Amino acid sequence: MTLQELGVTVGTMPAGPRGSICDVPGVKVGHTTLNSERFHTGVTVVIPGVENPFLHKPPAGVCAYNGFGKTAGLMQLQELGRIETPIALTGTLNVGKVHDALVGWTLAKCAADGHPDVRSINPIVCECNDGTLSDIRSRPVGEQEVLSALKHASDTCAEGCVGAGAGMICHDLKGGIGTASRVMEFGGKPYTLGVLAQTNHGSLKDLTIGGRLVGPRLAELAGRHEPDKGSCIMIVATDLPLDSRQLSRVAKRCSVGLARLGSYIGHGSGEVFLAFSTANLYEELDKTPIVPTLSFREDDMDVPFRAAAECAEEATLRAMLAADTTVGWQGTKIYALSELWGKI
Amino acid sequence: MTLQELGVTVGTMPAGPRGSICDVPGVKVGHTTLNSERFHTGVTVVIPGVENPFLHKPPAGVCAYNGFGKTAGLMQLQELGRIETPIALTGTLNVGKVHDALVGWTLAKCAADGHPDVRSINPIVCECNDGTLSDIRSRPVGEQEVLSALKHASDTCAEGCVGAGAGMICHDLKGGIGTASRVMEFGGKPYTLGVLAQTNHGSLKDLTIGGRLVGPRLAELAGRHEPDKGSCIMIVATDLPLDSRQLSRVAKRCSVGLARLGSYIGHGSGEVFLAFSTANLYEELDKTPIVPTLSFREDDMDVPFRAAAECAEEATLRAMLAADTTVGWQGTKIYALSELWGKI
Amino acid sequence: MTLQELGVTVGTMPAGPRGSICDVPGVKVGHTTLNSERFHTGVTVVIPGVENPFLHKPPAGVCAYNGFGKTAGLMQLQELGRIETPIALTGTLNVGKVHDALVGWTLAKCAADGHPDVRSINPIVCECNDGTLSDIRSRPVGEQEVLSALKHASDTCAEGCVGAGAGMICHDLKGGIGTASRVMEFGGKPYTLGVLAQTNHGSLKDLTIGGRLVGPRLAELAGRHEPDKGSCIMIVATDLPLDSRQLSRVAKRCSVGLARLGSYIGHGSGEVFLAFSTANLYEELDKTPIVPTLSFREDDMDVPFRAAAECAEEATLRAMLAADTTVGWQGTKIYALSELWGKI
Amino acid sequence: MTLQELGVTVGTMPAGPRGSICDVPGVKVGHTTLNSERFHTGVTVVIPGVENPFLHKPPAGVCAYNGFGKTAGLMQLQELGRIETPIALTGTLNVGKVHDALVGWTLAKCAADGHPDVRSINPIVCECNDGTLSDIRSRPVGEQEVLSALKHASDTCAEGCVGAGAGMICHDLKGGIGTASRVMEFGGKPYTLGVLAQTNHGSLKDLTIGGRLVGPRLAELAGRHEPDKGSCIMIVATDLPLDSRQLSRVAKRCSVGLARLGSYIGHGSGEVFLAFSTANLYEELDKTPIVPTLSFREDDMDVPFRAAAECAEEATLRAMLAADTTVGWQGTKIYALSELWGKI
Repeated sequence: MTLQELGVTVGTMPAGPRGSICDVPGVKVGHTTLNSERFHTGVTVVIPGVENPFLHKPPAGVCAYNGFGKTAGLMQLQELGRIETPIALTGTLNVGKVHDALVGWTLAKCAADGHPDVRSINPIVCECNDGTLSDIRSRPVGEQEVLSALKHASDTCAEGCVGAGAGMICHDLKGGIGTASRVMEFGGKPYTLGVLAQTNHGSLKDLTIGGRLVGPRLAELAGRHEPDKGSCIMIVATDLPLDSRQLSRVAKRCSVGLARLGSYIGHGSGEVFLAFSTANLYEELDKTPIVPTLSFREDDMDVPFRAAAECAEEATLRAMLAADTTVGWQGTKIYALSELWGKI
Repeated sequence: MTLQELGVTVGTMPAGPRGSICDVPGVKVGHTTLNSERFHTGVTVVIPGVENPFLHKPPAGVCAYNGFGKTAGLMQLQELGRIETPIALTGTLNVGKVHDALVGWTLAKCAADGHPDVRSINPIVCECNDGTLSDIRSRPVGEQEVLSALKHASDTCAEGCVGAGAGMICHDLKGGIGTASRVMEFGGKPYTLGVLAQTNHGSLKDLTIGGRLVGPRLAELAGRHEPDKGSCIMIVATDLPLDSRQLSRVAKRCSVGLARLGSYIGHGSGEVFLAFSTANLYEELDKTPIVPTLSFREDDMDVPFRAAAECAEEATLRAMLAADTTVGWQGTKIYALSELWGKI
Repeated sequence: MTLQELGVTVGTMPAGPRGSICDVPGVKVGHTTLNSERFHTGVTVVIPGVENPFLHKPPAGVCAYNGFGKTAGLMQLQELGRIETPIALTGTLNVGKVHDALVGWTLAKCAADGHPDVRSINPIVCECNDGTLSDIRSRPVGEQEVLSALKHASDTCAEGCVGAGAGMICHDLKGGIGTASRVMEFGGKPYTLGVLAQTNHGSLKDLTIGGRLVGPRLAELAGRHEPDKGSCIMIVATDLPLDSRQLSRVAKRCSVGLARLGSYIGHGSGEVFLAFSTANLYEELDKTPIVPTLSFREDDMDVPFRAAAECAEEATLRAMLAADTTVGWQGTKIYALSELWGKI
Repeated sequence: MTLQELGVTVGTMPAGPRGSICDVPGVKVGHTTLNSERFHTGVTVVIPGVENPFLHKPPAGVCAYNGFGKTAGLMQLQELGRIETPIALTGTLNVGKVHDALVGWTLAKCAADGHPDVRSINPIVCECNDGTLSDIRSRPVGEQEVLSALKHASDTCAEGCVGAGAGMICHDLKGGIGTASRVMEFGGKPYTLGVLAQTNHGSLKDLTIGGRLVGPRLAELAGRHEPDKGSCIMIVATDLPLDSRQLSRVAKRCSVGLARLGSYIGHGSGEVFLAFSTANLYEELDKTPIVPTLSFREDDMDVPFRAAAECAEEATLRAMLAADTTVGWQGTKIYALSELWGKI
């Protein structure tokens, strides 16, 4: 089901050609999905615009709007204002294994690029809890799944029940991976901001689509009345030359998109928004103490702010629209929005 | 104009008897308003549940969602988790004078209460910019206005173009002071959360009321198409025994209410949400090193979160509904929502 | 070699009976050490005063003075003000495997305690880089090592080249695990604060012991002139009823101890100080919304501040004094302070 | 008394020609001092390298190591990463009046520079408490004193009992204003970092000079045994092109200098370190959305870190050395270090 079929337009800014985070040049997304009776889980990776982010570190910022979550790597991100691995998203209890897999991948990647002695790596691993639909305690996602997602990453971003989206529940309907992009113009040049969302948040009674409180009616149809817990991860990418502080400000606006859909950003929902830029990379091997760079005018920040808010709302909706009704490992049935929408 | 006349209900939780921040026992509000050809400004004070907050310091937390503003006193609030003066809201360039007035008031108050040697005070002064409607550069609000607001503070909270609300512009319509409350129950006892808002944020094209994007049509009627700048202050009061960290979490949810009305929380808009509790006061004169206190169960935080989000949305709407069309010192006419609403 | 033999007394407060973090009632420490030609690494665990911290969560705070490090679990710690697993310290690249091991241990522990359905766990894993002395890229510390350290944890804290201390280098001399405690009295009752340090920071030329700049002479003897990188972790435990905000304030004072020994807290040194209290546990299973608790008077904080600073300095010195000269996997020889001290 | 006469050398880096914050090109300092029987107070201003910082905003960062203080303007500094007024330091209860004076000065300055319609200003006002020596409750420092300090600001920085230093007490001896600088070289070019300190912190029993614990003996001589309260402000200036995040990291290292002198950075002592750069100014009037700028290599940060720590220690010592024994408005006599030093 598409946004068009839903009859909803999000915001006023134009989207990029793919309508995806991959509209930001160089950004790639890969998924490994585990779908079986027992497992609805997986891992999604975002390649941040460069094949070896350890050698060419993208500036990054973060807003942990509600830090009830297990995202790894944020302390160093905040201190140094940059990331140095692809970003992995997965189910909560897989974080350790996925962390270790990103270490292994980075060691190998740097060795292949002529740097066999790397000894310190800060993996970024985000997570939402897929324990309702998947046997989360078994921690089925590890090295093999991460390497496969990285290997198959491309500039096409699949949505819905794929990768880390397989076991997501959003507003008590089936969530998943969603994406969106917006195009801006500064100084006569086009720039792009894209969001990839892993949506596992919200309660159904609050769901509001296009300004219409549709949740209560859908809750009757779905027979689900759960509290808001589970988390939402938003990865924001842009080719605007924003520094870490500015990226944190942009990331924060993802909360606007969530609120528009009816979320109160509940206590149990770890809402983490992480933004990176593909401009002004920190060159690990360049020892020049002072280098020229580009700086984005602070007083023009309203444009990327709006882009982030619109993308966050749209990516969440698209995650729900692309998802399929799923029956979990313990028999819980989570409806897709598309299955119930016609019955409202 | 009332919410009922507007045809909008905000959220699902019940309001307190006054529908105001003054529903929290002991909380009082006072206004001094300057209305003339040259000035539309003033000061609003919130008495945080106790007559002498220097001697009985309320726990407090803050979320500076967008810290483009001049609010004073936050550093100490964050370090010590408490406030020690009434909270004053005013126009941007008055902050220094109002700060000094709160110092003077606190010195006198403590002296009257038998403590003539107080030497360190942390006034809390919040602000929005009223320079479009009022001759802000003259800084007309000072000691006399603050003392008068404090003297006349009561448990009735006037709304609209009063006090610090006199010169506010919200979504390019006339803003002002608004308030709302919600009642909760825990362990068989009722608790209240209230919000007082000083609303000076948002652009008209984005205004969304009850889920309906009414801004573009109103912008035609109002002939205003300004960017989002000016700020929004939300003061959250509760008698729930929340600590500083918890109060900061609750304060943050005010952003949800703003987003619902269409705000992207723009770069130029200083969005500051400050929350205090009237429970678990820090007794300045009690030297007992370890004292019994009450602690609110973290996993029940969804209730005050929802209350804060609902109150923030409702208080903003009520500020707009209670405001009157105003012509500024340089001739700018800012319409009241109530004046245009019938013409949509 | 002892502090006495060194001729140094740190501070003025009295130590507890063991002079260790285990003087805080209930706190236990366990080590698994890997010592071989190839590996000088391991894992150290701190049991935070209670056998199942998932069911009885200790309040906690953190100061990431220099966040260039990979410590996991801090986001949730800061949001909720509590921890829910033992704290593990290890070598940098083991973080993922140790994280996963703590997940496994907690799942099993909770199952054994009658809660077989836990689905969300926030492990705390701290790290320093032991890549100079140990083949860090092999990531030799995993589930078996963590479980063994947890199993053998006791109220006796071994120091020096044990556990996560095996591969540490501190001020270019051999570092390791060190500990110290201080006793305080409030309201006629004794309270204890203890620190466990994993010391891997500082450059030798800056080393200052007992106010005496001994580093340059030691650097000649050791033939080492490396920059400050590697990190330092300090775990602070106390039975004072401090809340999360207060614990963060106390943790921050560990930086004072490091500065006294000559550290500038260098860019490459991830200095993370984490504090927890064994009082006021958050009872996972207790659904009472408002519970009585104890609160420590803020204006008495100087006492635990001083205790933390003294313990941080002493624990660092003791880690160095207890360590042995070590030859790393690539032949690098790192001298113990005790071996060089007599030659100054 | 000089450092040389004291027999102490701080650190290893070379100082600039003036040994003062004014070694950073363009930085000026001005003082207005009130010395009388009743008052030992004043105001010190730092001109951040440019005559009109509102039009040419310097990047800035801050570390509120212990935020028990009333410093104004930090919220916006942290959000936008820049300052827009001179920095004023004064006595605690003068903050409001000095704040208002900076507003007035900036309005006039911008009007004189062709911008008569400025309506939003974020003054930076720092403070320490001079209530022991001066009748602080009278708030004697206001517009006239601030304007005079700004008018007479020059590249010569007087030290000791001048300006905001007049009423300072440091380690229970007479404190005041002190300054220091260090020179660095990057890419063959010289850069400078300077610190101006307002020193009002520490207890005498802890005072350590050149590694020697001289406090207890001095305390006997001075007959003073007070707890640590009062605050310490450090202003760090540099012409290195550091961004806001980097400046915050540099500012934090001022705590190292304080710890070296024996401070535990007590609860009652508001320790605020604010750093700005004179490079990469934000040009208020330039509407170009993306501008070229310079970026300092993060992995070279150890050099400015060390410079900040050394300057903080030296500036504190120099403040004490330049100060004179002072008798306060209520008869309290505070000795100068120089008066007691010979008697140790």
